[in-house]
Amino acid sequence: MNRKMICNMVGRIVLLEAALMLIPLIVSITYGEKCVTSFILTILFAVVIGAALVAASRMRDSTIFAKEGFVIVAFAWLVLSAIGALPFVISGEIPHYVDAFFETVSGFTTTGATILTDMEAMSKGLLFWRSFTHWMGGMGVLVLVMAIIPSESGRAIHIMRAEVPGPIVGKIVPRIRETAKTLYLMYMALTVAEVIFLLCGGMSLYESLIHTFGSAGTGGFSCRADSIASYSPYLQWVITVFMLMFGVNFNVYFLIMVRNFKAVLKSGELWCYLGIAVVSGGIITLNILPRYTTFGEALRHGYFQMSSIMTTTGFTTADFNQWPTLSKAILLMLMFSGACAGSTGGGLKVSRVMLLFKQIRREIQSLLHPRSVGTIRLEGKRVDSRTLTSVSNYFALYIVCFVAMFLILCLEPYDIETNFSAVAACFNNIGPGLAAVGPVESYAGYSVLSKIVLSVGMLLGRLEIYPLLLAIPSIIKPNLLRSRK
Amino acid sequence: MNRKMICNMVGRIVLLEAALMLIPLIVSITYGEKCVTSFILTILFAVVIGAALVAASRMRDSTIFAKEGFVIVAFAWLVLSAIGALPFVISGEIPHYVDAFFETVSGFTTTGATILTDMEAMSKGLLFWRSFTHWMGGMGVLVLVMAIIPSESGRAIHIMRAEVPGPIVGKIVPRIRETAKTLYLMYMALTVAEVIFLLCGGMSLYESLIHTFGSAGTGGFSCRADSIASYSPYLQWVITVFMLMFGVNFNVYFLIMVRNFKAVLKSGELWCYLGIAVVSGGIITLNILPRYTTFGEALRHGYFQMSSIMTTTGFTTADFNQWPTLSKAILLMLMFSGACAGSTGGGLKVSRVMLLFKQIRREIQSLLHPRSVGTIRLEGKRVDSRTLTSVSNYFALYIVCFVAMFLILCLEPYDIETNFSAVAACFNNIGPGLAAVGPVESYAGYSVLSKIVLSVGMLLGRLEIYPLLLAIPSIIKPNLLRSRK
Repeated sequence: MNRKMICNMVGRIVLLEAALMLIPLIVSITYGEKCVTSFILTILFAVVIGAALVAASRMRDSTIFAKEGFVIVAFAWLVLSAIGALPFVISGEIPHYVDAFFETVSGFTTTGATILTDMEAMSKGLLFWRSFTHWMGGMGVLVLVMAIIPSESGRAIHIMRAEVPGPIVGKIVPRIRETAKTLYLMYMALTVAEVIFLLCGGMSLYESLIHTFGSAGTGGFSCRADSIASYSPYLQWVITVFMLMFGVNFNVYFLIMVRNFKAVLKSGELWCYLGIAVVSGGIITLNILPRYTTFGEALRHGYFQMSSIMTTTGFTTADFNQWPTLSKAILLMLMFSGACAGSTGGGLKVSRVMLLFKQIRREIQSLLHPRSVGTIRLEGKRVDSRTLTSVSNYFALYIVCFVAMFLILCLEPYDIETNFSAVAACFNNIGPGLAAVGPVESYAGYSVLSKIVLSVGMLLGRLEIYPLLLAIPSIIKPNLLRSRK
Repeated sequence: MNRKMICNMVGRIVLLEAALMLIPLIVSITYGEKCVTSFILTILFAVVIGAALVAASRMRDSTIFAKEGFVIVAFAWLVLSAIGALPFVISGEIPHYVDAFFETVSGFTTTGATILTDMEAMSKGLLFWRSFTHWMGGMGVLVLVMAIIPSESGRAIHIMRAEVPGPIVGKIVPRIRETAKTLYLMYMALTVAEVIFLLCGGMSLYESLIHTFGSAGTGGFSCRADSIASYSPYLQWVITVFMLMFGVNFNVYFLIMVRNFKAVLKSGELWCYLGIAVVSGGIITLNILPRYTTFGEALRHGYFQMSSIMTTTGFTTADFNQWPTLSKAILLMLMFSGACAGSTGGGLKVSRVMLLFKQIRREIQSLLHPRSVGTIRLEGKRVDSRTLTSVSNYFALYIVCFVAMFLILCLEPYDIETNFSAVAACFNNIGPGLAAVGPVESYAGYSVLSKIVLSVGMLLGRLEIYPLLLAIPSIIKPNLLRSRK
């Protein structure tokens, strides 16, 4: 294994984090807050660590194999979160390191699960940093590195495969670096658009940025304890639409950019995603209708909550834990299906669910007509059997991880609904769950063990399990990876 | 499609049901109960229907293809349950037909979910019939038909494949009819053994038979409202052990019969099954220890409940709904893994879970060493890729069916835990769930729609989804099946 390459990449990422932390530093200077020191100290620490790592690993060979891609991504995300948690601890606003780590992992993985109970008491700089991690984590931190740092690394596609979610990772344009740049340009454009729309609705610039970071990364951290509930209906609808837009595969925006509208109309995943959104939002609206005075109000809350959960954002306008069982159950199921592949959203991804359904249909056909040979197509392309097996195995592995985390959480005195939805909400990178981890509650009541398990769960969910899982044997038995090159 | 063959087989099964109903008839005559008439009327009805079906379909061609096997099994189980429900309705002891159908499906599928709230008020003959359906359903009604009725049907293996649970159906001895006979002989021997052990513990013959039927079929109907709770510790331990024994693949008993102990010791599924049993029973015991006065008591309840849920029987000695969350969560997970393939138990089956884990391991290995080609073995034999794909697809289909039923049940005013565990308990053929369908509750409170959905769920679970799913297109579009022979 190319260890130098791994150190070098992790070092670069730490330096990037130090650079990006200048933004919340400026915010806290602007507001004249005490937390300025904590940012400065963290930045200095990160620069030293990052520079040391880069200096210690002058590479000659910059080749990356699939396994190195996994290990780099796994380490990068762990180190990013570990350092990103420091300002909270140094400032004393989140006194325990495990809590700060949970909150930072929740930020980078765009989960939005929080241990904070009194958001309004936090300083603005730290809340900005907390939300900014959503924006960085949404499109991928390593993709960002590839977009801005020139590198001749031969097979950067492996890093991209390990960081960008979904069963099949396509290069939008032939060269990886160009793809990374294009992705970030589109991401930036949508971000700016949302900020403008929110400003037009009378939201302050600071809050517009916070909530745009939350919806762009499909994260869900807000600067208010009641999330989006106290904003105007216009602002709630703007966020509903933008959350849905960030849950769309970014390939679709690229196709729109190059004016290939035919391909957009043919995108099965897009239509399936929108179909699920419209139908489930509609059912929820009808189900909660008796609880609201007007149809418009029910429609707004129904579609906001659907959009927020389905895209795995986690903003809330209503305490959906008080809604009827059917609505809660639909939201719980939407947590699993998630958003589109190649978007900033989490969950299993719509395309994976589609492939599972297609495989089931083929199985039924082959039972009815044993001699028939069915091919499975996605977005017009034939999906090879290797990818199909991977999807099935990912699904099985996903369930296994889920059950393992659920059983560990059940050591807590909470009820089954709380623990089940806590794992669902963290593993799928949503944020709020049901019952004792519902929209008006927090994760503060969990023990240290459970917080660590849930932090790992958030990382597993965001990185789609394998990178983290494969990094473990590489630490314990480095020879395992070195043995066969 | 060979429709005559299907009619003929279903006719035979109805006649068999009429013949077997003579046993509860004798029981109710012995106790001088009113329900005698309801049995006589049902038997007459079944004889007329059965004879008509057989007479109307004199076959020349007795060939059965895979699809006919599925359709026969699906129809047979539906008709059996529809007729089996009649004595309850005619006697007036279960006034509504849907309730009686639910109870009978629950019997045949060896689920043990009940809508009865006052078991002691039922007549003994009907309770006997209710439990006897467990025994018939356990090893398979069509397997029984094959064992006792001489037939030259060329490919009876298709019926057996459709009725005997598990990913791979092996013929124990080369000829199907001999295999069916051997299976039923072993089943009978174990049944007699349990009756003797229970009689030795001072249980009456009637109650011994009732509870043996319940454990042999891994069903769970008892003649007492508190299930096994009021019996002596000796009797509870006997039932614990026999439940576990009926959850073992019957191939193992065949191997013991032919003194091939080496093969028994090598059986991966057996060891995995026993391993799960010992470990989960142990954790539950430690978890519930503070609630009981002695260690022996906690051990007894812990292992009884583990054995009952894991083998999908559903007897209870304690209200496990009151146990700590961890124990409840373990029991909930055991509902899904279930018993061994080729046993009378339900759930996903241990061997399927093992294959899923093996596939995950192979996937991880192939990610670490892209050029490695891993083969997957079960019980020493190489599992071909077709079977592996089937297992993955079954798993996906299982989840899809589960979610669909769960969402329909959520139309009810019950909470998520109740509805989730109700589907888990019916789909996996266990019986009692958690919360409002817990061990001391019943399914009486559900609406007619939910009872029908759960009845279908029990049949889907017992027949492993495909037969019922494939029977639907064969009814709607018979040409679909006829088109390609």
